Amino acid sequence: MGIVLGPNQYGKSENRVVRIYRDTARHEIRDLNVSTPLRGDFDAAHTIGDQSAVLPTDTQKNTVFSFAKEQGITSIEEYARALGEHFVDGTEAVSAARVEVEEYAWQRIEVDGAGHDHAFTRSRRRRRVRPSSPSTTRGSDRRTTVVSGLKDLVLAKTTGSEFHGFLTDRYTTLPETHDRILATSLVARWRYDRTDVDWDTTYQSVRSLLLRQFAEAHSYALQQSLYAMGEAALETHPEVAQIKFSAPNKHHFLVDLSPFGVDNPGEVFVAADRPYGLIEATVQRDDTADDPVAWHW
Amino acid sequence: MGIVLGPNQYGKSENRVVRIYRDTARHEIRDLNVSTPLRGDFDAAHTIGDQSAVLPTDTQKNTVFSFAKEQGITSIEEYARALGEHFVDGTEAVSAARVEVEEYAWQRIEVDGAGHDHAFTRSRRRRRVRPSSPSTTRGSDRRTTVVSGLKDLVLAKTTGSEFHGFLTDRYTTLPETHDRILATSLVARWRYDRTDVDWDTTYQSVRSLLLRQFAEAHSYALQQSLYAMGEAALETHPEVAQIKFSAPNKHHFLVDLSPFGVDNPGEVFVAADRPYGLIEATVQRDDTADDPVAWHW
Amino acid sequence: MGIVLGPNQYGKSENRVVRIYRDTARHEIRDLNVSTPLRGDFDAAHTIGDQSAVLPTDTQKNTVFSFAKEQGITSIEEYARALGEHFVDGTEAVSAARVEVEEYAWQRIEVDGAGHDHAFTRSRRRRRVRPSSPSTTRGSDRRTTVVSGLKDLVLAKTTGSEFHGFLTDRYTTLPETHDRILATSLVARWRYDRTDVDWDTTYQSVRSLLLRQFAEAHSYALQQSLYAMGEAALETHPEVAQIKFSAPNKHHFLVDLSPFGVDNPGEVFVAADRPYGLIEATVQRDDTADDPVAWHW
Amino acid sequence: MGIVLGPNQYGKSENRVVRIYRDTARHEIRDLNVSTPLRGDFDAAHTIGDQSAVLPTDTQKNTVFSFAKEQGITSIEEYARALGEHFVDGTEAVSAARVEVEEYAWQRIEVDGAGHDHAFTRSRRRRRVRPSSPSTTRGSDRRTTVVSGLKDLVLAKTTGSEFHGFLTDRYTTLPETHDRILATSLVARWRYDRTDVDWDTTYQSVRSLLLRQFAEAHSYALQQSLYAMGEAALETHPEVAQIKFSAPNKHHFLVDLSPFGVDNPGEVFVAADRPYGLIEATVQRDDTADDPVAWHW
Repeated sequence: MGIVLGPNQYGKSENRVVRIYRDTARHEIRDLNVSTPLRGDFDAAHTIGDQSAVLPTDTQKNTVFSFAKEQGITSIEEYARALGEHFVDGTEAVSAARVEVEEYAWQRIEVDGAGHDHAFTRSRRRRRVRPSSPSTTRGSDRRTTVVSGLKDLVLAKTTGSEFHGFLTDRYTTLPETHDRILATSLVARWRYDRTDVDWDTTYQSVRSLLLRQFAEAHSYALQQSLYAMGEAALETHPEVAQIKFSAPNKHHFLVDLSPFGVDNPGEVFVAADRPYGLIEATVQRDDTADDPVAWHW
Repeated sequence: MGIVLGPNQYGKSENRVVRIYRDTARHEIRDLNVSTPLRGDFDAAHTIGDQSAVLPTDTQKNTVFSFAKEQGITSIEEYARALGEHFVDGTEAVSAARVEVEEYAWQRIEVDGAGHDHAFTRSRRRRRVRPSSPSTTRGSDRRTTVVSGLKDLVLAKTTGSEFHGFLTDRYTTLPETHDRILATSLVARWRYDRTDVDWDTTYQSVRSLLLRQFAEAHSYALQQSLYAMGEAALETHPEVAQIKFSAPNKHHFLVDLSPFGVDNPGEVFVAADRPYGLIEATVQRDDTADDPVAWHW
Repeated sequence: MGIVLGPNQYGKSENRVVRIYRDTARHEIRDLNVSTPLRGDFDAAHTIGDQSAVLPTDTQKNTVFSFAKEQGITSIEEYARALGEHFVDGTEAVSAARVEVEEYAWQRIEVDGAGHDHAFTRSRRRRRVRPSSPSTTRGSDRRTTVVSGLKDLVLAKTTGSEFHGFLTDRYTTLPETHDRILATSLVARWRYDRTDVDWDTTYQSVRSLLLRQFAEAHSYALQQSLYAMGEAALETHPEVAQIKFSAPNKHHFLVDLSPFGVDNPGEVFVAADRPYGLIEATVQRDDTADDPVAWHW
Repeated sequence: MGIVLGPNQYGKSENRVVRIYRDTARHEIRDLNVSTPLRGDFDAAHTIGDQSAVLPTDTQKNTVFSFAKEQGITSIEEYARALGEHFVDGTEAVSAARVEVEEYAWQRIEVDGAGHDHAFTRSRRRRRVRPSSPSTTRGSDRRTTVVSGLKDLVLAKTTGSEFHGFLTDRYTTLPETHDRILATSLVARWRYDRTDVDWDTTYQSVRSLLLRQFAEAHSYALQQSLYAMGEAALETHPEVAQIKFSAPNKHHFLVDLSPFGVDNPGEVFVAADRPYGLIEATVQRDDTADDPVAWHW
């Protein structure tokens, strides 16, 4: 019984690319974190250290920076697609490129009610995209799958959330509740099934739909909130095939102030760090299968 | 020659207090991280383990949570002041309390152009406050010093920054530049010399002044930008005695694309992690001394 | 075309369980971080908020703590197996439990050359285990797959590593090298195909084999080092079916000291943070398939 | 009333210097994180952007790397002292240099019971040193103060710790205990009052004394344990003038298993994240004053 190489990939991770557009006095910043894992036939590199089919990660890095100028960054999805197709088309051994781009958003500093020309503050991390080019032969069947997403979107609702009717066993101590705080730090990623998409507009629309459903859907479980959020995104956007969530249930426990003679009718809570519930769920069209290259939790 | 106890303090750190105001259908969230270091005569606890003068940190925690309801949180400065004065007035051995409150800001989720009643997203950490009650005798000479501040405010300007004319020695390799990216992740803390202050309004004003000067002051050094920022805050706000900055110079290096035949006139940069320059500076009135309890870097 | 629930799981994450064995004066500490994601038929919870099949994560937490006493912790693999089987056997809707246990190792403080009875220092995180119980029907076909592993094992070799003969294109600038520093922060996980294993002995043996191969195998690529490490583990341990690595290539760049008139023949390096190469590879027996529940990158 | 510059410093932070000694086949690694904050008369840089007295942080970085070869690293204290004295002696405006060096320790990989010649694993961060050269005039009165230390040393004792007899008020709910777990993550820094010290030997001795006292001193408070630890270090080492501790009281709460019919006599605990008590204390000789440059919390 032999020992063999199984699934593998390699690439340069976390290239911190900053692109300034300074063609006019009103500058723009695109601030990216770019990784370029490649898959393909690299067995000889593993078994005998033969590098002749391997495009070094240093060269990948150079390409990532040069493309920021050569292709520019109209949207991170298009930039990532160009990179992925470059690696698949240009390197014999590469069967798939899983380019990941994370963007840090900047906004103009306001001075006298107007955004400044060249001074900015940075917001939280905005979103990531994972275009994939899973062609096994390079040429006619090349295909690019785009995944957009957001992470670390911290959400809470201070009412409109219940939790009861659950299974009990000998280890149950949790009381039922008809009014609790529901809070999470959302990771959401959605996969498109085509690439003729207005990426920025669609991203903003999906984000708004997720927020709106979180706010408006009365919740009997975090699971239910997530499902309603995903359903709204899929209903509005036929170009989205599937959406995945990872959502910690960030517990807020009511503090017992009665020993101090103080009433606490749902007003003072302790925000707990660990443990936390963790809900992971996919909402998808009924004819959709996972894309094995583009996609994992 | 004897061995003795030197400077010391103790307290409960990082109480995660969440206060919901739900008196009407339009809820409010105040989300705090509260620490309560106390100073005073606790020598016996150290030398012989005698706790009779020690208010346990567990009791401090209970007080922090109960005050969120008993006093409420009109501003974090007032809440912190109430806590600090409680510990100084109520505990014989305490000579000074250095309450620290860090607030996480939440904003309403927008639905159809209006903020939702009870659904929120969290922004970055907003600011910290460190009221101090350095009374050595409790009574007539009790005094509270308030420090407000912000941290992790990431800023950049894509032009309007030069660096030249510096000292050189045998280890110098840095070229002079007349146009560079200037970026930092700002920590700023300012000390008030009185307590009849409209805390929230003043905080917003100081923050705006810092941002405006960063944007508008032409920079020959990060030091100079910081000084201009501090000066603007002190000029506008006579109630502020002193402001301290800690500002990493987050280097952005121009990438050499010439090996690939690509011109790069100040457009593609690599954002470096380490090392970074670190500038720390105080701007203050010429008759101001440091407050030894309220204040250190 | 309908919208449906896709793959999903839920559970309590990061229960910080500390178990003291104090039956004799010579105490023992087991310090664990335990997560219990469950899979199965929980569709109604997502679509209509019906919790009747859902074992709350709070109950899972209680179970995790109670099992630390009821079952004890002879090895983390056995403890995790007991938890996984409990959730699969005891909860109708659960088809698979993917219990994860991470252990923090403690060692006795040395006093006069002997380990102290009840005082300890903590080492780095030691390892994780992910037993899985992928029975679709509970009963005769229940099966438990155990994965052991380690992470954050920082390794370096200061010679015996080359890199040359690689593919070049117009973006290539990297010179070939016949002597470089090779460094990584290793994550390794190996899957057993049976459960009658002496877990602690086997863990130590696999760890030693990985270290030894890293040290002794002359390296023409990090890929090759990883393959040699995996091969050694599989050759010695027939009970191991597959081993997965994730290994950043932590670059050390030689510093050019020639401007200062100082020679630097491979002695002073800068340890870079980002970007880094990232190598991920599996070594397995030629008749082994991935276990879809136990296993992903 | 004018606005002026107050206390300030600047320098290059976190230079990641790796020095390999490869004079024989048995290599050595010294792996450092070096920061070089400088104080002095840099007012013009702040007020008008005049750099003529400023040694750029880039030049500091070059110096840090070149000294790793020119001076070598016999101990981090000596290396830091050489750097500090270089900046004070060589730069007119510098009145004090506060060089900080943090070392990551590596140990040889064991193969067949022997340490390998050139393959290593990394341990936790070991210690930091903060030599200071607070000469206001450069020349006869130049003085270097060395501070050594350790951080993130996680300690626990599973018995031999009590907590009772404390102050109570209306917010007290904590019960007294005569047997609890005492755990901390220790930061300790000690200041020498001379520089003719065998740094490595003394470091190891102080570390052992701290551990031994933590283990052996019966504890009525974490304060008391710290004081005993500091006292032991000062008694044995007359060259140490002062030692400072910062020690979170990492709470371990007994889990109530009685609802499940399980007895828990001090065996299963939950390790809490936040809040935590934080104890900070100095132990010093009775004729010792703080060194204002070398030293703050």
